[in-house]
Amino acid sequence: MIKEFDIISAVRKRARINKGVLIGIGDDAAVVEPSADAQLIACCDLSVEGIHFRCEWSPPELTGHKALAVTLSDVAAMGGRPRHAMVSIALRRDTTPDFVERLLDGIFDLAERFNVSIIGGDTSKSSGPLFIDTVVLGECDRGAAVARSGARVGDLVFVTGTLGGSALGLLLLQHGYRIDASGRVAGSDYESSGSGDERACFEAMMRHLAPTPRVNEGRVIGESGIATSMIDVSDGLSTDLSHLMQESGCGAVIRRQSLPLADSLRVLATPGSGIIEQDGGPLRLALHGGEDYELLFTAGPSALEQVGELSREIGIQITEIGAMVDGRALFFDDRGMVEVISPSGYEHII
Amino acid sequence: MIKEFDIISAVRKRARINKGVLIGIGDDAAVVEPSADAQLIACCDLSVEGIHFRCEWSPPELTGHKALAVTLSDVAAMGGRPRHAMVSIALRRDTTPDFVERLLDGIFDLAERFNVSIIGGDTSKSSGPLFIDTVVLGECDRGAAVARSGARVGDLVFVTGTLGGSALGLLLLQHGYRIDASGRVAGSDYESSGSGDERACFEAMMRHLAPTPRVNEGRVIGESGIATSMIDVSDGLSTDLSHLMQESGCGAVIRRQSLPLADSLRVLATPGSGIIEQDGGPLRLALHGGEDYELLFTAGPSALEQVGELSREIGIQITEIGAMVDGRALFFDDRGMVEVISPSGYEHII
Repeated sequence: MIKEFDIISAVRKRARINKGVLIGIGDDAAVVEPSADAQLIACCDLSVEGIHFRCEWSPPELTGHKALAVTLSDVAAMGGRPRHAMVSIALRRDTTPDFVERLLDGIFDLAERFNVSIIGGDTSKSSGPLFIDTVVLGECDRGAAVARSGARVGDLVFVTGTLGGSALGLLLLQHGYRIDASGRVAGSDYESSGSGDERACFEAMMRHLAPTPRVNEGRVIGESGIATSMIDVSDGLSTDLSHLMQESGCGAVIRRQSLPLADSLRVLATPGSGIIEQDGGPLRLALHGGEDYELLFTAGPSALEQVGELSREIGIQITEIGAMVDGRALFFDDRGMVEVISPSGYEHII
Repeated sequence: MIKEFDIISAVRKRARINKGVLIGIGDDAAVVEPSADAQLIACCDLSVEGIHFRCEWSPPELTGHKALAVTLSDVAAMGGRPRHAMVSIALRRDTTPDFVERLLDGIFDLAERFNVSIIGGDTSKSSGPLFIDTVVLGECDRGAAVARSGARVGDLVFVTGTLGGSALGLLLLQHGYRIDASGRVAGSDYESSGSGDERACFEAMMRHLAPTPRVNEGRVIGESGIATSMIDVSDGLSTDLSHLMQESGCGAVIRRQSLPLADSLRVLATPGSGIIEQDGGPLRLALHGGEDYELLFTAGPSALEQVGELSREIGIQITEIGAMVDGRALFFDDRGMVEVISPSGYEHII
C-alpha cells in the first residue's frame, strides 16, 4: 500500500510554484495572491472509476489528464483564466506506485501546458474504485464572467471546433476498440473488421479519453465581451443548449446542416459502418453525445463578423449553428423541416 | 437511484447567497468577489466511507458536518476567514433521498454557522463507498497567513482547548458504544459495563463524529499577528508538532503536566476503566490521538501575556505546553524525566 506522505512528497516535488503562489503544497492550506481587479472563479469535478473512466480503456496518464481537463473546461466556459488547481485522490488498495506516477504525469503535464499551478489536494485510500476530484481556481476581469443566463431572443448560437468525436470514441471503446501501449489502434473488433480508418479511430478515442479543454479560446471569448452566455459541451449539445435556454428563459433553434461534425465521424460514418449506424448515426452522436468539451455560446446578431475575427485570431473553427428564439422549446431545423427535440442527457459509462 | 439533477436542485435550493457571490451553484463555475487587500486561502479534504467515517457509527448529518468541519479547520490553521465552500459527493448506489437530505443538512448547517456560502460542487454515483470532497476558500489580510514554517528556537508552543477527546470517542465507537437516534449513549459494551459516565461518553463520541472547527479562534490568532507558526491537530499532537518542527527546522519539548486532557478522558480514565487502559492510557490518547481539530501554534516567549488576553477574548482555554528547541527531536518532559518520542501517526479507521 502506498503511503499518503509518499504521494504528497511526490506531488510536492513536481509542483512548480508560479508567481502569485505564496504558500503551496505542504501546509494546511494554500495561500495565493489574487490579481488586481480580478474576480475569482472556482469549480470542481469528480472523476470516478467505472462511472467517468475505466482503467482498462485508459492509461493512467490520460485518466489524470481528463480529470483535470474537464474542470479547466468549466473555467473556460466562464470566459476565465485558470490559475491554480487542487487534486484529491482516493486510491484503490491495489494501486501501484507506477500507476500513481503516471496519473500525476497526466495531471501535471496538462497543468503545465496551461500555466496552472497545483497548490494543494488530499489523498486517501478507497475500499472501492479510484476517485479523483479536481478543483480549479481561475480569474476574470471584474464583471467579465460569462454566465449561462445572459442569452436573449435573437442571439445567434455558436460552437467552437467539432461535435460528436468524443461520443464516437466512447462507442468504439464500448465495442472493444483500444489504443495500445504503442499508440496504435487495437482490439478484436477493429482487427476483425479490417475496414476502420486507423487515424479516425485514434482521433475519436483520444478525443474521448484525453479531451483538450478550450482554455485559451474561452479566455479570448470572455475577454472580447462578445458572448451573452456560454457553457461547455460536456453533456451533449442538446442538453447543454437546454441548460442555456433554461437559465436564460428562452428557446433555441439549431440547423442540422450547420452542425460541425468531427472529422473522425465523417470518415467513419460511411455506408456499412455498422457501429455508428447501430447507434443512431452520426447526427445522434453530434447532437446528443457528450464530452466534446467544446464551448457553446451565444452572441448578438451583429457579432457575426467579430466572431469570424476571433476564430481567425485563436486559430479555431467557430460555427454559427442557430439562434435563440421565443418560448422554451429546442427546435431542430433539417432543411426547412422543423421539429421539437428533447435534450437527451448524456449518460456516463455505467 | 437518485438523479444528479435532483441533488443539484436540492443543493441549489439550500444555498444561501452571501454578499460577494456573483454566480453561485448552477453554472459551469462559481464567481466571487475577493475582498480588497485580501489573499486567497484554498484547501480540500477527502472523507471516504470506511476510511474516515462509518455509516453505522455516524448519522448522515454528522458525516456531512465532519466532512466540512475538517476543511474549515485547515483555513483556521492558516489564521484565515473561510468564505466559500464546494462539495463533491459520489453516492453509493443504495443511497436513499433521505440520507442525501440529512447529509446536506449537516453540511449546510455548519456552513451557515460560520457564514460560509456553498457555491459549487459535483455529484456522481460510486460503485463502491460514499466519497465526499470538501473545498473551502477563505481569505486573510495581505501577508497575515500563518504557515507551518515560521517557528523559531525559543518560541513557546500553545494549543487551544483540550486533547484526546476525539481519540477516546473513536475508541468507544470501536468497542461498540454508539449514540442512538435519541442522542443517548447505547451499545452492548456500554450497557453491560454499567460503569460509564454517559455524559463523558457522549462528549467523546461527539468530539470524534462532529468536531467543531476552531474557525473564530484561528481567525483571531491570525489577525493578532502573534503566531509564528500554526497547524490544526488532525493527525495527533506528536505528529502535527513534528510537521511544525520539520517545516520550521527546529525541535520541540512538551511537558506532560501541561497537556490539557479532554474532560471526558479525565472522567473515564479512572482505575479499572478497561478500554482506555488497554489502549495505553489517557496520555497516549492525548499525545498521539488525532482529530481533535484544536489549533497548535507557536509564539515568541514575550507573547505569553498576549495569548492569555486572546484566550479570554475568544473565551477558550489556550495552554502553553512547551517550547521550540535546537535540533530536530521531539522531547517529552515528565516532571524532569526527559525522553525523545516519535510522532505516532494517527491511523484512520481502517
